[in-house]
Amino acid sequence: MTKNTKVNAAILIIGNEILSGRTQDTNTSTLATWLNSIGVKVNEVRVVPDVEEKIINTLNLLRKENNYVFTTGGIGPTHDDITAQSVSKAFGLKYEIHKEAFKILESYYKAGEFNEGRQKMVWMPANAQLILNPTSGAPGFSVDNVFCLPGVPSILKSMLGGLKNKIVGGEPILSHTINLRTVESEIASSLSKVQEQNKDVEIGSYPFFHSGKLGVSIVIRSAKQSKIDNCNSQILEFINKKKIEIVER
Amino acid sequence: MTKNTKVNAAILIIGNEILSGRTQDTNTSTLATWLNSIGVKVNEVRVVPDVEEKIINTLNLLRKENNYVFTTGGIGPTHDDITAQSVSKAFGLKYEIHKEAFKILESYYKAGEFNEGRQKMVWMPANAQLILNPTSGAPGFSVDNVFCLPGVPSILKSMLGGLKNKIVGGEPILSHTINLRTVESEIASSLSKVQEQNKDVEIGSYPFFHSGKLGVSIVIRSAKQSKIDNCNSQILEFINKKKIEIVER
Repeated sequence: MTKNTKVNAAILIIGNEILSGRTQDTNTSTLATWLNSIGVKVNEVRVVPDVEEKIINTLNLLRKENNYVFTTGGIGPTHDDITAQSVSKAFGLKYEIHKEAFKILESYYKAGEFNEGRQKMVWMPANAQLILNPTSGAPGFSVDNVFCLPGVPSILKSMLGGLKNKIVGGEPILSHTINLRTVESEIASSLSKVQEQNKDVEIGSYPFFHSGKLGVSIVIRSAKQSKIDNCNSQILEFINKKKIEIVER
Repeated sequence: MTKNTKVNAAILIIGNEILSGRTQDTNTSTLATWLNSIGVKVNEVRVVPDVEEKIINTLNLLRKENNYVFTTGGIGPTHDDITAQSVSKAFGLKYEIHKEAFKILESYYKAGEFNEGRQKMVWMPANAQLILNPTSGAPGFSVDNVFCLPGVPSILKSMLGGLKNKIVGGEPILSHTINLRTVESEIASSLSKVQEQNKDVEIGSYPFFHSGKLGVSIVIRSAKQSKIDNCNSQILEFINKKKIEIVER
């Protein structure tokens, strides 16, 4: 079986705390790195507030435009956690107690500690598939192509392993980075020519500051190693001509 | 003059490097914190790739739905920097050399160093307003309600001071945080009642892990200090009854 080469996803970050600047989102980078490694390209990311209508409308758009949607945040026990009920409404499903999730949390907590707040976390869209949580018990869930994960970065990370066999990726997107002791303007014109000759390869140029020195990272990305190698040779050719130093970052 | 209490903005992060996970975006949190401090609420954030059509469509939607749009990334000298030409097309403006920007960079660089790559950075939408860059010379720009900033976080930060008098905010959004040695499920029900009684105040609950201990931050946000104080009293009341410890984070 040949893998579909184009599998894509959107990430939907849910939470007022990101939009107020109080919390620095790191889940995008965690999810995007992981998705790329299994051959899923992230098409776009959106951050929306804890507002039901906004979550529903955004989700209904993203789930039609992408093979997968990953949401983060809003599946905890408090009043501002409204992801599960919003996803239920987006799909027109009942929002109800998930029996398997109930059993998991009932046995996870000590007798008497599975209180009202915690019980809110087992309310999900009807027939949701669980995503197990090895860190803090409360599972995430998926409905169709939408996967709902928590907002706490360490918990989210611990749940990715259990997700892997639920996501069918395409060819992994490979990348190669060349770090140079130069500034972007010195290589812009030559790099642009390489990009023009290799339109199906993604070539990015990113300035960096490291140990007080300026540099540029050129990142070549493609599902085909041969295409990366080809671009790499063309770039090394002009780098050598220009006598630009290649460095470790 | 009474300030308009509802001034909002969207942030549009432009760059493949964010979507690939290679680069951790920090500009959202920088911009959101700053915007909140001058009374501008961030409605949503979107991250899009270096694809002209996607940038144009997203920008044209966001600039109609929000008082302000802030873009980051894509205004450097390389081929993957396409923000200025995309903004020109979004507004139906000519993409041309900005004379003032040209003069600034001509005098910023040493004789002979204002090369072809650097000259790309003075191409902007016709009649764009410049946003001065005290760090690395090349200005950002604004057209109508759209403000285009660079992607490098330290440079972006240094440009905010010069932006301030161009943005008319509403009442600053105030916030108060209470840090508790508890878990969310212990306070969920009581906190939910406070939220129900104060529907126009934003109350968020965020678990934290600090020095190996679990805790919860309750964040109360409103433009009115009296409303925050009122919620704060109601929360302290149930906190005291439950004998939950208030802690420093």
